[in-house]
Amino acid sequence: MTPPFLFHPQVSPWFRATHDQLLLTLFSDAETAFDQVLLRLEPDNEEELHPMALLEQRGRLQIWQIAVPLPRGQEHHRYCFKCLTDDGQWWLHGGGCDPAMPARDTHFRYNSRHRPPAWVQDQVFYQIFPDRFCNGDPSLDVQTGDYDYRNRPVIHKAWGEPVSAQGEGTAACEFYGGDLAGIDQKLHYLQSLGVSALYLNPIFASPSNHKYDTQDYYRVDPHFGSNAQFAELTRNLRQRGMRLVLDAVVNHTSTEHPWFAPPAGAHRNPASPWRSFYTFDAEGDYVSWKGIRSLPKLDFASEQVQDAVYRADDAILRHWMRPPYLIDGWRLDVIHMLGEEGCAQGNRHHVRAIRTAIKQENPDAYVLGEHFFEASQWLQGDQEDGAMNYYGFAHPIRAFLAGKDIAYHPIKISAAGLDQWLRQARAHIPFANQLAQFNLLDSHDTARFLQLLDGDRTRMTLAVTLLMTYIGVPCIYYGDEVGMLGGNDPDCRRCFPWETTHWDHALHERYRHLIRLRRQRPALRRGDCQTLYAGDHTLAFARTLESDQVVVACNRHPTNPRTLTLPLWQTGASATRFRDASSGERFELVQGELQLTLPPGAARVLIAT
Amino acid sequence: MTPPFLFHPQVSPWFRATHDQLLLTLFSDAETAFDQVLLRLEPDNEEELHPMALLEQRGRLQIWQIAVPLPRGQEHHRYCFKCLTDDGQWWLHGGGCDPAMPARDTHFRYNSRHRPPAWVQDQVFYQIFPDRFCNGDPSLDVQTGDYDYRNRPVIHKAWGEPVSAQGEGTAACEFYGGDLAGIDQKLHYLQSLGVSALYLNPIFASPSNHKYDTQDYYRVDPHFGSNAQFAELTRNLRQRGMRLVLDAVVNHTSTEHPWFAPPAGAHRNPASPWRSFYTFDAEGDYVSWKGIRSLPKLDFASEQVQDAVYRADDAILRHWMRPPYLIDGWRLDVIHMLGEEGCAQGNRHHVRAIRTAIKQENPDAYVLGEHFFEASQWLQGDQEDGAMNYYGFAHPIRAFLAGKDIAYHPIKISAAGLDQWLRQARAHIPFANQLAQFNLLDSHDTARFLQLLDGDRTRMTLAVTLLMTYIGVPCIYYGDEVGMLGGNDPDCRRCFPWETTHWDHALHERYRHLIRLRRQRPALRRGDCQTLYAGDHTLAFARTLESDQVVVACNRHPTNPRTLTLPLWQTGASATRFRDASSGERFELVQGELQLTLPPGAARVLIAT
Repeated sequence: MTPPFLFHPQVSPWFRATHDQLLLTLFSDAETAFDQVLLRLEPDNEEELHPMALLEQRGRLQIWQIAVPLPRGQEHHRYCFKCLTDDGQWWLHGGGCDPAMPARDTHFRYNSRHRPPAWVQDQVFYQIFPDRFCNGDPSLDVQTGDYDYRNRPVIHKAWGEPVSAQGEGTAACEFYGGDLAGIDQKLHYLQSLGVSALYLNPIFASPSNHKYDTQDYYRVDPHFGSNAQFAELTRNLRQRGMRLVLDAVVNHTSTEHPWFAPPAGAHRNPASPWRSFYTFDAEGDYVSWKGIRSLPKLDFASEQVQDAVYRADDAILRHWMRPPYLIDGWRLDVIHMLGEEGCAQGNRHHVRAIRTAIKQENPDAYVLGEHFFEASQWLQGDQEDGAMNYYGFAHPIRAFLAGKDIAYHPIKISAAGLDQWLRQARAHIPFANQLAQFNLLDSHDTARFLQLLDGDRTRMTLAVTLLMTYIGVPCIYYGDEVGMLGGNDPDCRRCFPWETTHWDHALHERYRHLIRLRRQRPALRRGDCQTLYAGDHTLAFARTLESDQVVVACNRHPTNPRTLTLPLWQTGASATRFRDASSGERFELVQGELQLTLPPGAARVLIAT
Repeated sequence: MTPPFLFHPQVSPWFRATHDQLLLTLFSDAETAFDQVLLRLEPDNEEELHPMALLEQRGRLQIWQIAVPLPRGQEHHRYCFKCLTDDGQWWLHGGGCDPAMPARDTHFRYNSRHRPPAWVQDQVFYQIFPDRFCNGDPSLDVQTGDYDYRNRPVIHKAWGEPVSAQGEGTAACEFYGGDLAGIDQKLHYLQSLGVSALYLNPIFASPSNHKYDTQDYYRVDPHFGSNAQFAELTRNLRQRGMRLVLDAVVNHTSTEHPWFAPPAGAHRNPASPWRSFYTFDAEGDYVSWKGIRSLPKLDFASEQVQDAVYRADDAILRHWMRPPYLIDGWRLDVIHMLGEEGCAQGNRHHVRAIRTAIKQENPDAYVLGEHFFEASQWLQGDQEDGAMNYYGFAHPIRAFLAGKDIAYHPIKISAAGLDQWLRQARAHIPFANQLAQFNLLDSHDTARFLQLLDGDRTRMTLAVTLLMTYIGVPCIYYGDEVGMLGGNDPDCRRCFPWETTHWDHALHERYRHLIRLRRQRPALRRGDCQTLYAGDHTLAFARTLESDQVVVACNRHPTNPRTLTLPLWQTGASATRFRDASSGERFELVQGELQLTLPPGAARVLIAT
């Protein structure tokens, strides 16, 4: 049995929520005769079925609607739709359409209390690994032999010199001199690219080049600059209307943090005032993150740790949100592992408390979690606004275009498989959080996407098109836009090549074009996301708002073109004319359908005109 | 891409858990060449991939195994399996087999701290609605006009007289005289049927015939008998080795409960010592369950309510678990709705606290929840042991055989759809809890299954066969075994026809036969559950233990027979000879396969010999 067309639009005017009511809409195809269409809600965990009214018919499109009181006393709401034919039923849920009631997991979700800040979805983020982006003040550079890091002398390297390989043991102790002044100098470059927000890898005092082992949470690393320079950077960003998110590494500290290190720290010192900050076993040995001895894990069972990190008035997470810094959000490192007694115990409680503290400082702050895998449990509204979207974006796009998974194992999925993966990932979180997901192709923790593609520019263009048009806020890992290569960490942390002769100018131009498009078209930033076609190699979807629409289609096949007839009538939008955003070719709907040919390896973006 | 055969057995010797280690096994087909098979675990919410070793090959069956340390500091564990081929991957999870990583929802689950009591899975339950089962002491009968119930005089009816229809308003105030003495008299009947455990609808003092509106939680309703008679019944049950579960109705009380009623109760009495027991709005109006005015909802925000229901030494739920009663468990009425301030707020906290209290009284007690729909969130181990399995058994079987859902809407599913529904429902809960699910075809809240089938004995036999052979503990609603009919509540609560001339003796014999089989064959009570075939109308599965195996097959088609070749080699069991438990026909595996013909409408149960 092929499921009929059914779609639940989640943007205005089809979806509206007030403090005590929900307006919900369902689209169906008049060619499937439904005797009745019902909304299924779960007030107090109990099923309620509410008949929906047929509001209107537009050609083949039937529009069903209902306004229901929002159940009291709960913030998490789940619902789905039950559509009756004369001899059976179809259920629409976030995961698809089924002939019987779907499991609760994929019911549509709505959080009536917590929603991500609206500004997030309008950004284009840029991730910077500070030591490698730009050296603005060579006087701050780490010099070879300045100090030892994990028993090896630190090394100063010339800008652009190859990074050492992972096995060599020097990966974390070689320094290229990138700093805040460098970032400051390049704000113009970033703004010309179209970037509107930065995510910086850790900048606080730390002996390593990656700074995920913090020594002092209240001081910018002196090789990156001073606190005053950082304040200056934040001022400059604000003046340009740009946003800033910092990396919060509060699951563990450096062994050189005073809480841990001699003379007064907790290590080998049961009398230390910070003894409760860490977890020690019966032999007095400390728990470290994933067994990495340089990263002792903080114990959130300790009220002192809670105070230090999020609760007290000058807690770390509060401090940098205040003047003069006023950062716009935190990216919470390995947040799923944070917890009590050396484990992730109590994780939910502490992440909720972290959210509360952050939102107390600024209700409009972005709470972003780092998760390499599915983060649905942190994305129900009451914990994070969004996650680094490896699970619901980077991994499926990598599988589809590079044929590799995150463990570098071969993986084969069709465009239909890609669509299912993307949709399923969305199905587990509220729509508002889907819009605030932090989409990325790669990061300081993965190989560069272009490298995974063995330098294939055609597929890279498909990937970037998806990054800039899919639901969620895109983030560019520094240098991807000029074609930087690099394998796994640390090779993905090469120096940005400021000599433009090293740039892939066509790719750079493609990024600029797609970013501009995203910034011009609200449908790409806030629109609904509806699959129009998903086959073996070809995927097409619409991003739709009341006043705007964009159609995206891509064809992975290296040699075969593909002609598609896309049922635009299913989107409920009024646009009938489209233009290819790149070639300018014009299209007109015929009976609600759009016919479109995709050359091999092509991505096309059509905008309503 | 058709998924390859993969199966994760969850019984000994393939699955073993100690306090700090898990032994896990995966079965694959040697004809699918896997380069590597990996276990995916999530200690502290972080992915770990562990290569599994190829333990053995038995014909086509490849057996992969791994022993892994159980992650510390967490009781809920999820895992799945990643199998690599030279150009792709397959993931086995509870919901099936996919070419990419499945959502966490369907990863296999294991709770290392909480498991249901082992005795549960070995029972055959029988549900009794006391007023309608047997009148053992007519002197206790409610007499017409004895008192008013909701402004109508109560009515005494003769045994077997038709129940009044729902709309008549007398449904809850007509009484037939069934009582505890009647149950006591029929214990021999029940034991001959093969029943080993009873679930009684509420028996505590209440003005209605259903007694879901309790007036006194510490007193058996005088029309059912005295507390002493109840103690006697429990003693008799224990002597027979039978178990007893009572109905705990603690979401709401009767309006006539002293906590609520005049003179001192909370209603219209802000000064009442029990005012905090209920929720009142600004106008002083009380919150009632689903707006039914006779059922004021208890407010679990009140410490007094917590004390009264579960916390204090003589709390309701503790009281009846102690001598002389020593009941074996509680069926918790509308437990998903219980909570604070008139809503389900804090539900998880209170259900966990209820479990704790019950297990404090008897660690071996059965905590059974009533849920008409998916109850996965209560079935992770730390709340309920099992649920009345409407969602994962009654509803899918009803859909498959009766073509109706619980709302009486038409529904059409194939045997493959049935298998998917059953498997998906299992996928969301630990295996131990699957074994303790309370499977039923119908209850005091639904139409009788035979009525739903319009009296079709053939399909009823299929249904009963599935009830007695599927994973979970079966419960017979009183009288189903003799072919009682009855539509929705209250028609499903007719009097048991003790005149055997009214019985369907063939059906009764079928029940006895299947119950005997279940009690004889440990594989049916504790065995793994593995689908061998699922097509349009035909389903076959194996229940497997190290030392026992049973194969169940059924064919819904009314006119077409079906011949199946079942891949028994996939179960890893050593049995090669089977016998039809009913006809005695003998079967022998040929190259690990069993060939079997199912007549139209037939169910067959084959037992290893």
